[in-house]
Amino acid sequence: MYRYERSVRFQEVDAAGLLFFPNFLVICHEAMEDFFGALVGGYAGLIRGRGLGLPCVALETQFIAPLRHGDAFEVQLEVEHVGKRSLQLSYRFMRGEQLCAEVRETVVVTDLEALKSADMPNDVRELCQHHQVGT
Amino acid sequence: MYRYERSVRFQEVDAAGLLFFPNFLVICHEAMEDFFGALVGGYAGLIRGRGLGLPCVALETQFIAPLRHGDAFEVQLEVEHVGKRSLQLSYRFMRGEQLCAEVRETVVVTDLEALKSADMPNDVRELCQHHQVGT
Amino acid sequence: MYRYERSVRFQEVDAAGLLFFPNFLVICHEAMEDFFGALVGGYAGLIRGRGLGLPCVALETQFIAPLRHGDAFEVQLEVEHVGKRSLQLSYRFMRGEQLCAEVRETVVVTDLEALKSADMPNDVRELCQHHQVGT
Amino acid sequence: MYRYERSVRFQEVDAAGLLFFPNFLVICHEAMEDFFGALVGGYAGLIRGRGLGLPCVALETQFIAPLRHGDAFEVQLEVEHVGKRSLQLSYRFMRGEQLCAEVRETVVVTDLEALKSADMPNDVRELCQHHQVGT
Repeated sequence: MYRYERSVRFQEVDAAGLLFFPNFLVICHEAMEDFFGALVGGYAGLIRGRGLGLPCVALETQFIAPLRHGDAFEVQLEVEHVGKRSLQLSYRFMRGEQLCAEVRETVVVTDLEALKSADMPNDVRELCQHHQVGT
Repeated sequence: MYRYERSVRFQEVDAAGLLFFPNFLVICHEAMEDFFGALVGGYAGLIRGRGLGLPCVALETQFIAPLRHGDAFEVQLEVEHVGKRSLQLSYRFMRGEQLCAEVRETVVVTDLEALKSADMPNDVRELCQHHQVGT
Repeated sequence: MYRYERSVRFQEVDAAGLLFFPNFLVICHEAMEDFFGALVGGYAGLIRGRGLGLPCVALETQFIAPLRHGDAFEVQLEVEHVGKRSLQLSYRFMRGEQLCAEVRETVVVTDLEALKSADMPNDVRELCQHHQVGT
Repeated sequence: MYRYERSVRFQEVDAAGLLFFPNFLVICHEAMEDFFGALVGGYAGLIRGRGLGLPCVALETQFIAPLRHGDAFEVQLEVEHVGKRSLQLSYRFMRGEQLCAEVRETVVVTDLEALKSADMPNDVRELCQHHQVGT
């Protein structure tokens, strides 16, 4: 499991005073970007250097409890499945013991020039397998 | 069906040059906000005036084709189900004939002070039933 | 003068309930993007097609009155000066008769590959001169 | 001087591949929010607990060099002046030795209920004076 911690920022809430729901997904991507920071060149090296992206193709989310400005939370990222060209990831938002949201996401390794799926590079596979659930 | 049209803006793409996936959901909410603009006082009147919100509790999304800066698209919002205190909505992103993304969302009428579910106001129900699928 | 009208969206306010100040500048850019929509290929054609950008190099802003969720406003964009390679633009945010914010911006025509300034294309110059203050 | 460090995220660049200019100001506010994290209750405690905000009333910015996805930078926040009800802050974006942007900002202590200026609380004043330039 990979853990990403921070607090809800001033501008991330909406007019109802709650973390705007698409911002949960922005934060998931932040966690993923940090997770891939362990690659040589980081996530930016993958995108800009190697021309590979990991676009999201499917998403399933439950929002259980709201978060407000200043609330500290932890995102628990887990790699559920490593395919030949795709990954299944899950993210749990915890405010202390309270589960606030749960996200399941499928991303596909993509050649950004051709916009076609591509084989997963070895270093991406190894990093993901290293954090895979049940390993 | 309610239709919401615009183009991908300069800042809505990511470093891969594609509409950043949480922005699809930001745009869904824009469409929903415009849809509820038909209420007296609009969506802001519901939130700020009546203290009621419609937070998203569940989300299911498929991303089928990417959108790039400048791409014109239409969001087709449909009300799938009107419950006592909840709504099921769907959104389809069309770039011409190409389906780019499909979103299904459940929102719950919520008293923003108590952060508890509340009965759906009549005007919200009537507007939604008016746009309900199959009617 | 070029006019751009809309309302403050649900997610554009901050935890203080006011339009988050960087969002004024996001909206200025929206107005500018729409203004350049009159070019063949639009603003995206300039960026993606011709490899030219108009990055902001200087900004001066006064915030006079806040905007809240649902507030309708008009942005009044004016071209103050057209240089060989740069533009000076101003933006006034009006909520009815109330001036809410005033922005002055300098942008430089930039070759995005070389990241160097470039001569202003004729169609950009003509569009800007057409909307220039005092003409 | 207060230092805030991070890298440009995947979604913070625009279609030109450069940090979208309003995001410099979003990041300034992040730095300011972290700076005020030293208050009891943090910045959120000021806003939500005490009903006081620090809205920006004036802004002056020079953009000198662009930032791209993955670029690491440091924001150097300095308190230039502490008034009875206002603060002047400056922010310098450094990528290594390269100055990328410079921001000067005036914020006013504001009673968020009345939307009127208010006297600066002692703990805010003390924190600011502690970080003031030349002290």
